[in-house]
Amino acid sequence: MRRTLARELNNLIERGRDRQLRLAVTGLSRAGKTAFLTSLVYQLRHAGLEARLDLLPAARDGRLLGAQRVAQKDLGVPRFPYDQAMAALEATPPRWPEPTRGISELRLHIRYRPERNGLFKGLGSDSATLTLDLFDYPGEWLLDLPLLEHDYLSWSRRQQATLSPERRALAKDWLEAVDRLDPAADADEAELAAIAERYAEGLRSAREEGFSDLQPGRFLLPGDLEGAPVLQFFPLPGLDEDDRRRLEALPEQSIYQTLARRFDHYRQHVVKPFYREHFRRFDRQIVLVDVLGALNAGPERFEDLSRALATLMQSFDYGQRSLLSRLFSPRIDRLAIAATKADHVTPEQHANLVALLEALLAEPIKDLRFADVPLSALSLASIRATQVQAVKHQGKHETVLRGMTLKGEETLMFPGEVPPRLPRHDFWARQGFAFQAFRPLSRDARGEGLPHIRMDAALDWLIGDKLT
Amino acid sequence: MRRTLARELNNLIERGRDRQLRLAVTGLSRAGKTAFLTSLVYQLRHAGLEARLDLLPAARDGRLLGAQRVAQKDLGVPRFPYDQAMAALEATPPRWPEPTRGISELRLHIRYRPERNGLFKGLGSDSATLTLDLFDYPGEWLLDLPLLEHDYLSWSRRQQATLSPERRALAKDWLEAVDRLDPAADADEAELAAIAERYAEGLRSAREEGFSDLQPGRFLLPGDLEGAPVLQFFPLPGLDEDDRRRLEALPEQSIYQTLARRFDHYRQHVVKPFYREHFRRFDRQIVLVDVLGALNAGPERFEDLSRALATLMQSFDYGQRSLLSRLFSPRIDRLAIAATKADHVTPEQHANLVALLEALLAEPIKDLRFADVPLSALSLASIRATQVQAVKHQGKHETVLRGMTLKGEETLMFPGEVPPRLPRHDFWARQGFAFQAFRPLSRDARGEGLPHIRMDAALDWLIGDKLT
Repeated sequence: MRRTLARELNNLIERGRDRQLRLAVTGLSRAGKTAFLTSLVYQLRHAGLEARLDLLPAARDGRLLGAQRVAQKDLGVPRFPYDQAMAALEATPPRWPEPTRGISELRLHIRYRPERNGLFKGLGSDSATLTLDLFDYPGEWLLDLPLLEHDYLSWSRRQQATLSPERRALAKDWLEAVDRLDPAADADEAELAAIAERYAEGLRSAREEGFSDLQPGRFLLPGDLEGAPVLQFFPLPGLDEDDRRRLEALPEQSIYQTLARRFDHYRQHVVKPFYREHFRRFDRQIVLVDVLGALNAGPERFEDLSRALATLMQSFDYGQRSLLSRLFSPRIDRLAIAATKADHVTPEQHANLVALLEALLAEPIKDLRFADVPLSALSLASIRATQVQAVKHQGKHETVLRGMTLKGEETLMFPGEVPPRLPRHDFWARQGFAFQAFRPLSRDARGEGLPHIRMDAALDWLIGDKLT
Repeated sequence: MRRTLARELNNLIERGRDRQLRLAVTGLSRAGKTAFLTSLVYQLRHAGLEARLDLLPAARDGRLLGAQRVAQKDLGVPRFPYDQAMAALEATPPRWPEPTRGISELRLHIRYRPERNGLFKGLGSDSATLTLDLFDYPGEWLLDLPLLEHDYLSWSRRQQATLSPERRALAKDWLEAVDRLDPAADADEAELAAIAERYAEGLRSAREEGFSDLQPGRFLLPGDLEGAPVLQFFPLPGLDEDDRRRLEALPEQSIYQTLARRFDHYRQHVVKPFYREHFRRFDRQIVLVDVLGALNAGPERFEDLSRALATLMQSFDYGQRSLLSRLFSPRIDRLAIAATKADHVTPEQHANLVALLEALLAEPIKDLRFADVPLSALSLASIRATQVQAVKHQGKHETVLRGMTLKGEETLMFPGEVPPRLPRHDFWARQGFAFQAFRPLSRDARGEGLPHIRMDAALDWLIGDKLT
């Protein structure tokens, strides 16, 4: 009896301590971060009303009473623009919300009725509050983690190795300019700025063309650092590890030393502060991946996404010997990876979609399991933009999707089958997949609430245990 | 003899120590900061070649050998975009450079031949180098200095007092919304964000309409803080000093306390860092003022500019008891204030222009003289856009300006007389002044070099003593 009492008291204390949770959402650009966060806030705010959250026990049992936005703690971080996002979804015609840039934050108070069992059944206050701090930041920032392991020379060599033929073509202007540079020559500020701009332009074109493995991440979203020397560096091709001594002996004003100084400043004053001031404070994290988009874009981009994700996931590998653990001792205790836009394929493909996501992340997942980071992989649609319909095709019943294209044309389509493992040559040869972007459903078409696929499952994994 | 030797050695050492100078350029938006800095860099780079700098002794005596841009020290501050500015001026048709946003920096190495006299005539190396760090930042940031003396309540009261009838009309949307607020009510994040946006919108409209006395300065150029709660506050009208105790006893989540917290965060994390990290490191400063623009805009805006300048100049008042001296111990040892766009009036008006500038700044100048800050007032045109021409009008010879309007029409005009003291009612009644904006001269019209008015005089005051 006494031991039970102690345990239950302990539970109560635990619950008190857990009343606050910092949940971060990330993903490479266009993975669907804004839609996810908008839907998450909407579903929690409308729990018990229009929101359908059957896979979240607190909601299913009617214990989730709702959520309210309250003042966030860090006044210097932009607030996640939920109202603007909802306004876009409610517009005529409905639009996808504007993507966020940089980091943003939102604090929710979630009211729920704790489960009552055991000794304290019927005791205590009727409801409890969980303070949920939500953060949204570009996955591109995590691609910068490896920079911390590199110095300028090794980073230059590494970047050179990752230039595929198509990436090389997109970076043509930069390559031409950098080829003429002598690392030992005196740096000309204006020249370096111009070449760095060509390098950034190459990264931007590569992103436009669907590539993901882009470094350094801030070159794509410079913000207040636009035009600062810290964003005016680039790798020097053709360097060799054998040149190290010669290069490091070059005078301070040489091109090599100037670029190396900027690279170092970037590591110290751009990459590290994000990990130190934000990342290591997150409790939980969901990484969104647009698998279908990459599948649609062909083998070179799919390969590129795979490489980018492997890099990105290093930030969650807290093995004792990982770079991150040594530097920042982060504390994320639960991680979700989700293939978004599941509404863009028919429901029987969802299992394949998860399988493919796991295949894509096979190596990082192995490392994470080894490091004992609790992990869940799922597929979801934050805001469902299609409806499923059965049609008869050549005498057979088939499931197809109905939705509005971005141009506003109503379409009925079967997007194809998702391969359950990494696609091989013959898949690409068949071009078996036709991804179509849909715009959000209008209020009339979707009815009350914001329809989704498995947002409730994601919520259960990410916050469900704090609502018991 | 020995004493002379000691003195001259001392001079040499002094010179060694003075080889570095940090010169800052500021002014309210449209005062002409970008044109000034572009011209300054151009004139120094082309000294001894196309640049005419007769009022700068080092140049006149042929001792100024030129200047070169080199790597700046702070890699995290945007570099002043000199090349882009020159490209705009060289375009067909020529354009004024894009205004800079926020702070920017540029480092020059100026080569000169020291004056040789006394004992060391003919001794030592042939030339010396002065490292000139140039900074450019919005004068609006200096308008925030008084915030450091206020708390939220006193600032609210102060802001209320400065709303003129026309400013009130421009802030109508905000005033309507804020009037309905109860300071004691619980803060609603989204509501405060919306009202703050209306307040910022009011500031932006006021700036569009030619007003200058706008607080807080960062609301106009938010940069990476866009959407952050620290920029989501505004004054509460109708507060009284007698309410202080009642207001300060309000709960933490009240509207009053929420706004007061944000105001405080703004002071601590936005205003102070600029003074601490940049301002107190400047050695010399030039403040540019568009007197003619204000004269053209009528009495309410002229009055407003006068108030804004009085506030702005407080940042240079280093009297022992000034706020700034107590907080940051800045060290500016020379200050220039310049009425820009002198080419927009005929030359015989220049003396009046300086007199009017001094009248406009009479109070701050008095304080600065008292605080023993060396000060020079002048009029100049960074990049001259007009040519002076004599015409015969009603039998009399008159001087007029010839230039191209922004629309590209060639114009011949007499803009009117500049009053040598603060204009009184009858001046405004006569509407005696017709300011016309001109575009830069084309290469053909201006010939070699970048023509200016008294840039050399400004340079002499700001750096001349370091080139001896």
